[in-house]
Amino acid sequence: MIHLLSSKKKVGLPPGSVVFTGDRKVEKIHLHYLQYNEQEIEEQTVDSETITSFHQPVEDYIQWYDIRGLHDTAIIEEIGKVFKVHPLALEDIADTYQRPKLDEYEEGVFITLKAFTFDKIQRKVKLEQVAFYLGEGYLLTFQEDATDLFEAIRARLKNGRGRIRKRGADYLLYALIDTVIDQYYIALEEVEQVVEEIERDIIERQSRENRTKIYDLKQEMLLIRKTTIPLRELSSQLMDTENELIHENTEPYLRDLRDHIIQTLDLIETYRENLNSLQDLHLSELSFQMNTVMQVLAIVSTIFIPLTFLAGIYGMNFEHMPELQWKYSYFVLLGTMAVLLVAMIWIFKRKKWL
Amino acid sequence: MIHLLSSKKKVGLPPGSVVFTGDRKVEKIHLHYLQYNEQEIEEQTVDSETITSFHQPVEDYIQWYDIRGLHDTAIIEEIGKVFKVHPLALEDIADTYQRPKLDEYEEGVFITLKAFTFDKIQRKVKLEQVAFYLGEGYLLTFQEDATDLFEAIRARLKNGRGRIRKRGADYLLYALIDTVIDQYYIALEEVEQVVEEIERDIIERQSRENRTKIYDLKQEMLLIRKTTIPLRELSSQLMDTENELIHENTEPYLRDLRDHIIQTLDLIETYRENLNSLQDLHLSELSFQMNTVMQVLAIVSTIFIPLTFLAGIYGMNFEHMPELQWKYSYFVLLGTMAVLLVAMIWIFKRKKWL
Amino acid sequence: MIHLLSSKKKVGLPPGSVVFTGDRKVEKIHLHYLQYNEQEIEEQTVDSETITSFHQPVEDYIQWYDIRGLHDTAIIEEIGKVFKVHPLALEDIADTYQRPKLDEYEEGVFITLKAFTFDKIQRKVKLEQVAFYLGEGYLLTFQEDATDLFEAIRARLKNGRGRIRKRGADYLLYALIDTVIDQYYIALEEVEQVVEEIERDIIERQSRENRTKIYDLKQEMLLIRKTTIPLRELSSQLMDTENELIHENTEPYLRDLRDHIIQTLDLIETYRENLNSLQDLHLSELSFQMNTVMQVLAIVSTIFIPLTFLAGIYGMNFEHMPELQWKYSYFVLLGTMAVLLVAMIWIFKRKKWL
Amino acid sequence: MIHLLSSKKKVGLPPGSVVFTGDRKVEKIHLHYLQYNEQEIEEQTVDSETITSFHQPVEDYIQWYDIRGLHDTAIIEEIGKVFKVHPLALEDIADTYQRPKLDEYEEGVFITLKAFTFDKIQRKVKLEQVAFYLGEGYLLTFQEDATDLFEAIRARLKNGRGRIRKRGADYLLYALIDTVIDQYYIALEEVEQVVEEIERDIIERQSRENRTKIYDLKQEMLLIRKTTIPLRELSSQLMDTENELIHENTEPYLRDLRDHIIQTLDLIETYRENLNSLQDLHLSELSFQMNTVMQVLAIVSTIFIPLTFLAGIYGMNFEHMPELQWKYSYFVLLGTMAVLLVAMIWIFKRKKWL
Amino acid sequence: MIHLLSSKKKVGLPPGSVVFTGDRKVEKIHLHYLQYNEQEIEEQTVDSETITSFHQPVEDYIQWYDIRGLHDTAIIEEIGKVFKVHPLALEDIADTYQRPKLDEYEEGVFITLKAFTFDKIQRKVKLEQVAFYLGEGYLLTFQEDATDLFEAIRARLKNGRGRIRKRGADYLLYALIDTVIDQYYIALEEVEQVVEEIERDIIERQSRENRTKIYDLKQEMLLIRKTTIPLRELSSQLMDTENELIHENTEPYLRDLRDHIIQTLDLIETYRENLNSLQDLHLSELSFQMNTVMQVLAIVSTIFIPLTFLAGIYGMNFEHMPELQWKYSYFVLLGTMAVLLVAMIWIFKRKKWL
Repeated sequence: MIHLLSSKKKVGLPPGSVVFTGDRKVEKIHLHYLQYNEQEIEEQTVDSETITSFHQPVEDYIQWYDIRGLHDTAIIEEIGKVFKVHPLALEDIADTYQRPKLDEYEEGVFITLKAFTFDKIQRKVKLEQVAFYLGEGYLLTFQEDATDLFEAIRARLKNGRGRIRKRGADYLLYALIDTVIDQYYIALEEVEQVVEEIERDIIERQSRENRTKIYDLKQEMLLIRKTTIPLRELSSQLMDTENELIHENTEPYLRDLRDHIIQTLDLIETYRENLNSLQDLHLSELSFQMNTVMQVLAIVSTIFIPLTFLAGIYGMNFEHMPELQWKYSYFVLLGTMAVLLVAMIWIFKRKKWL
Repeated sequence: MIHLLSSKKKVGLPPGSVVFTGDRKVEKIHLHYLQYNEQEIEEQTVDSETITSFHQPVEDYIQWYDIRGLHDTAIIEEIGKVFKVHPLALEDIADTYQRPKLDEYEEGVFITLKAFTFDKIQRKVKLEQVAFYLGEGYLLTFQEDATDLFEAIRARLKNGRGRIRKRGADYLLYALIDTVIDQYYIALEEVEQVVEEIERDIIERQSRENRTKIYDLKQEMLLIRKTTIPLRELSSQLMDTENELIHENTEPYLRDLRDHIIQTLDLIETYRENLNSLQDLHLSELSFQMNTVMQVLAIVSTIFIPLTFLAGIYGMNFEHMPELQWKYSYFVLLGTMAVLLVAMIWIFKRKKWL
Repeated sequence: MIHLLSSKKKVGLPPGSVVFTGDRKVEKIHLHYLQYNEQEIEEQTVDSETITSFHQPVEDYIQWYDIRGLHDTAIIEEIGKVFKVHPLALEDIADTYQRPKLDEYEEGVFITLKAFTFDKIQRKVKLEQVAFYLGEGYLLTFQEDATDLFEAIRARLKNGRGRIRKRGADYLLYALIDTVIDQYYIALEEVEQVVEEIERDIIERQSRENRTKIYDLKQEMLLIRKTTIPLRELSSQLMDTENELIHENTEPYLRDLRDHIIQTLDLIETYRENLNSLQDLHLSELSFQMNTVMQVLAIVSTIFIPLTFLAGIYGMNFEHMPELQWKYSYFVLLGTMAVLLVAMIWIFKRKKWL
Repeated sequence: MIHLLSSKKKVGLPPGSVVFTGDRKVEKIHLHYLQYNEQEIEEQTVDSETITSFHQPVEDYIQWYDIRGLHDTAIIEEIGKVFKVHPLALEDIADTYQRPKLDEYEEGVFITLKAFTFDKIQRKVKLEQVAFYLGEGYLLTFQEDATDLFEAIRARLKNGRGRIRKRGADYLLYALIDTVIDQYYIALEEVEQVVEEIERDIIERQSRENRTKIYDLKQEMLLIRKTTIPLRELSSQLMDTENELIHENTEPYLRDLRDHIIQTLDLIETYRENLNSLQDLHLSELSFQMNTVMQVLAIVSTIFIPLTFLAGIYGMNFEHMPELQWKYSYFVLLGTMAVLLVAMIWIFKRKKWL
Repeated sequence: MIHLLSSKKKVGLPPGSVVFTGDRKVEKIHLHYLQYNEQEIEEQTVDSETITSFHQPVEDYIQWYDIRGLHDTAIIEEIGKVFKVHPLALEDIADTYQRPKLDEYEEGVFITLKAFTFDKIQRKVKLEQVAFYLGEGYLLTFQEDATDLFEAIRARLKNGRGRIRKRGADYLLYALIDTVIDQYYIALEEVEQVVEEIERDIIERQSRENRTKIYDLKQEMLLIRKTTIPLRELSSQLMDTENELIHENTEPYLRDLRDHIIQTLDLIETYRENLNSLQDLHLSELSFQMNTVMQVLAIVSTIFIPLTFLAGIYGMNFEHMPELQWKYSYFVLLGTMAVLLVAMIWIFKRKKWL
């Protein structure tokens, strides 16, 4: 069972109340700051104490504020005030059970989605809440965890080659989301592997675990699907927005992003159908096995129960049983039994039970 | 079986006939009156006798009339006349089997929906009819029950902090609906818990109750879904209306409300699929168990029925059975039986039945 | 099996051919005539002979022609000519297998639908064809049967209270359709009752009838659904039409009508899913029962077949069986058997078969 | 298995290649020619040799060219040239696996669909390719077979009554398509009859054929559905076209045609669901029967296996078995067995197995 | 299990990175060059070394560059630069796991899709990545493999007859895609054949392979469907584009292409439903067989177990068993047994088990 609801879910609180609904995964909130343009790049990491005094708009630079850790809602609210983030967006940043969505506010574009990672040791899909807030010339990102989801992008920015340093904050936003979506493939690849294992297993032999494995995978696919479906709408909104924060020349990349998401959904649907087929196979395998077992039982019983009855007849102790005294009656009986045996085997052969 | 139809359902009555179709849950109809603006707040509770003489529009104040109890349709009709509520809306207020909906009339906006509460003792989902009528500067609410669904909002209004005292009646409407929707999560959380229990139970052992528990939960999910689906359309209507009673700056909150409703629907769909998987698991568990039982039966029968036949042969009382007199025939037979036994166990091992 | 097709269905006839496809349910066609305005009301019943000579438009009056019986297609065609009803509409009036629909012609609006009644004695849903033709100031209704579906409306018209006498023929049309839809609830209520009975039955014991009962109900629900689904489109057409025969102030009532139809569809879908769950429950109940039966069989067989084999061994008549002469071998064997018995019971207990 | 693909399907041929993909059903292609107006009608039948020299536009007459037989693609291409039919349309005329569709070309409207006939002897649904090409004042029809699908229409034209002689070629097109659709009902009626037979059969007894009968019907329904679904779009295109070849006053008839098609689809969906219910019933019937069989087996085994064991005990040949010498031990044992028997029957009764 | 994901899938690479994700199927990349107009045609094949120096626009000629082999991404990128193909399109050319799609760029139209071939020896569907890039007067095609998918078109171009030499590069694009789609039918035909084999097999006898065969076919159908569904959108985009590279007179052919794709989808859906029915048939066949087996077992057991018990009774060695001494008791017992046997057979006959 995958938990879909937070027990910390706030009921009856006013809207815009920033409540952290996840599990605290990091000691202190950190801010990783990066400012760059085509020529220069500067990096800085500050602690949660000094985090809110940080905002200085710098001309001709793209600013990326990457906040890691969401549990200290006071700091989140402080940051919200500094960057004029709408209270409803702040609420969604801290709510780890929030459905992926895009909201446009007057001052910026807010996006929240889930990052997927496959825990190779536990062989489980793990979810992490990620939020983006795109403003004029800057981008805020919020990660639940201290481990960086955006390492590859950071490296690309630093090595300075390619398109990314020449483009605006909207391209950075695109690149970051694309990295998150790319991780979905890795999770799905692992799913594919497990499906393959089960498949091989079912055809070879029936173990109790196959059943629960299929069930667990179905649950996981439900979770992945639930998380991916809203992304389709999100990416369309991103493409169709007339917000000036999203520049026109980023559009082909956003179209590419949407294609990736649709491809992911395609894969998810295919795996889901696959799992259903697998379950059908599993059930028909069970039925077939049962049939085989029952046939063996029926054959053995049908052959030997009547024969045993015959033997029982002549094991009776009546004083007056004429056959008992006849000389060849034992051999005649054995012969009759042999004939019966052969006849029944022949019948079963004809009925294709043997 | 959850009852979806009232036996009191009026057939052939003229439209607009106000007939109470629920069970009377409160002795007398009460009116809880609240009038507030940013500076002041006043509260009053009056009895059903004086309820209809109450309407005095007060300038610069938001007026909230909260009527509890719907059984006395005469009073409901009286209130309807005072506030010029359309007869079809009045009919819907009293009809507890009414589907959630939003109707715009010239003088006001009418909304009816269901509140969900999870009865912790009976472990059952309970439904309550709630209706809203938003007019210029005032809001009417109708609850089936004396217990207040809106306690949290009332507290927020009184303590005076936050946005709610500064906004109009439309924001109050939003806040109240949001509170009702929030309760849905609590009901769903309980569903999640029961699902988890069943899951654990199925994997550990098969009891007759699992089956009926899954069935009952499916019924409950049907009911919750039936109640939630119309809310999606309702919230879209609320967002898209150009009615002047809904102010523009309430829109982000209505969008948030719609997001909540869509998230609830997502959860419901996920749980429904979950329950289906659970039932599949349950059935395949039953099949697997049956297989195991049948294999044990088949193994024991296949081994011992032929052996018993052999013993039966030599239990016969024929006078002329040469083997009976031979010295070691008993031990030879025992040896043959042992060989047969080992051979059959070996066969079963190879067929993976053991 | 519910018959969905008429064997009298005319193939190859020119369109507009008026052919009665039902079973004749009434001796002679009758016309019930009602003319009213806010002040006065007049009623008249004429026979099929004089029926066609009847049409005299009366100023300032609403005229309601209620024709009962459809088998005499000559009269239907005659009426059609008098009121200038389009031949395709006439064809649909007499075709009792016609799908519910609304057609707008230049001179009037034609509606055909099915009335549902639940036959309490046979416990079966019964269908009746009803057709409406709304013209300027008059309404034609066609019923298959002599029993009046519109009794309640007729009573309301005569007693003269309420809105109905003050409004036009379009309001009368609305009121009549609403009455027909109201009957659907009664049929569904009966369905609910039967579902409940089956539910109780399945949990208590398995009888052969449950299966066919579920099947019959599923068939009935198919029929009800097939009849109700076109009504959704019909009611939307009625609401959205710009035909002057439908006055603007009837619109809230038509919206209400559509809400009723959608609610009916909701109920139907819910019952259908319910029946599917019920069938799942029924099947898993059967599986569970089979499991129980098989376990009992396996336990008894597994315990006694090996013991019987042991007894068989010492029932053999070999001359040289040393154990037979030993003094306590009988008691040792009994003891061994007892130990085996206890051991096997212990194993079954541990495997939770007992 | 119904064949959905032609093995003659041409791959890699240029578009517009006219290849006959069906089985040759007629010796020679014939042309049945009919020219009529309100006053006069003339009929002629010519052979495939003279077929292409035939086209002479005749003023004030509607011309109907009915070509029977499609195997001689040279003639089809010749006709295509004479009437300026687009090569892609010609390709579709000869391709009997073509999906029903409507294509508008500059010079005419092309329609292809399938005619259904129920072969009463083989009890199988048969398909026939029909194509229509509507030009200014004339209509081309193509039938696969020499037997006339349009006999009824031809008769109506000749007898000269009714609307058909007064209207244009577009009305003729409508009348012909309507005739084809009418045949669908006859096929469906037969399906209904077979469903009914199976239903009766399942409830009475289980035969192997029911299973394959349901499977065959499902296949047939798939085929009928696959053929009917494109007709919905086709009829909408026909209604919405602004092509001048379709006159305005034919529209009510086209609307009627679309209604017929939708009703057919409704019926198909209903039968499909019906077949699914039937299969569920069949399976639960099998399960129930198995349960009954297993109960009988379990009861007999559970009662007699332990008793047989007891008898086996006292059939042993130990020298020291004190009970054997006791005077009443035989009767005591018989009594014990009787008590056990009664007890077990009582237990089974209580468990409702008996 | 069909692999849907590449393990070489690049994660975190910047967009537009050209990475080959398939298996290298060809030694060296080759370019097959064709330049033609209505009068002349010229052909040339060059090696991967000289491939990029090749582009010379030739007036009044259509140029077709057919590149075979995708593994050398450096060459692909080089070609991309020469023809100014957008980096995102280049990325998609090399990514063999790319979903079929159409992207319009300023300089050209990019299409990627999958070619299907049925490997007759392995009896498996094989996929191949194909990409098209349509520019002004030229067409680039990319094949994964050295074997030519477009042989038929090449032949048509060379023999010079028909429409193809008179039309532009857009018609060539249409003709090539149409050839690819035509191959789908061949794959589906093979599917149809396998379905038929399984069908025959199931009805005749149950083998373990049927189950896995159905499962494998389901997987294949999933793959084919996943590949075909995006083509519907692709063909609509192609029809609706206002890009000047697609000339107006190609439109009827594009409409035809879309019809082919929709027909393919129809077939796929039909086969999928067919496979589901087949699985249902398979399962009900298994159930029916099990029933038969169980009935045989139950009949034999029910008849002989009680009889064996009776024989066991008189095999007991009690000293005081009066019946043993009676003269005819043996014959009386045999008679009783015969009566019991006949009675039970009669009962089974009446219950229709025999």
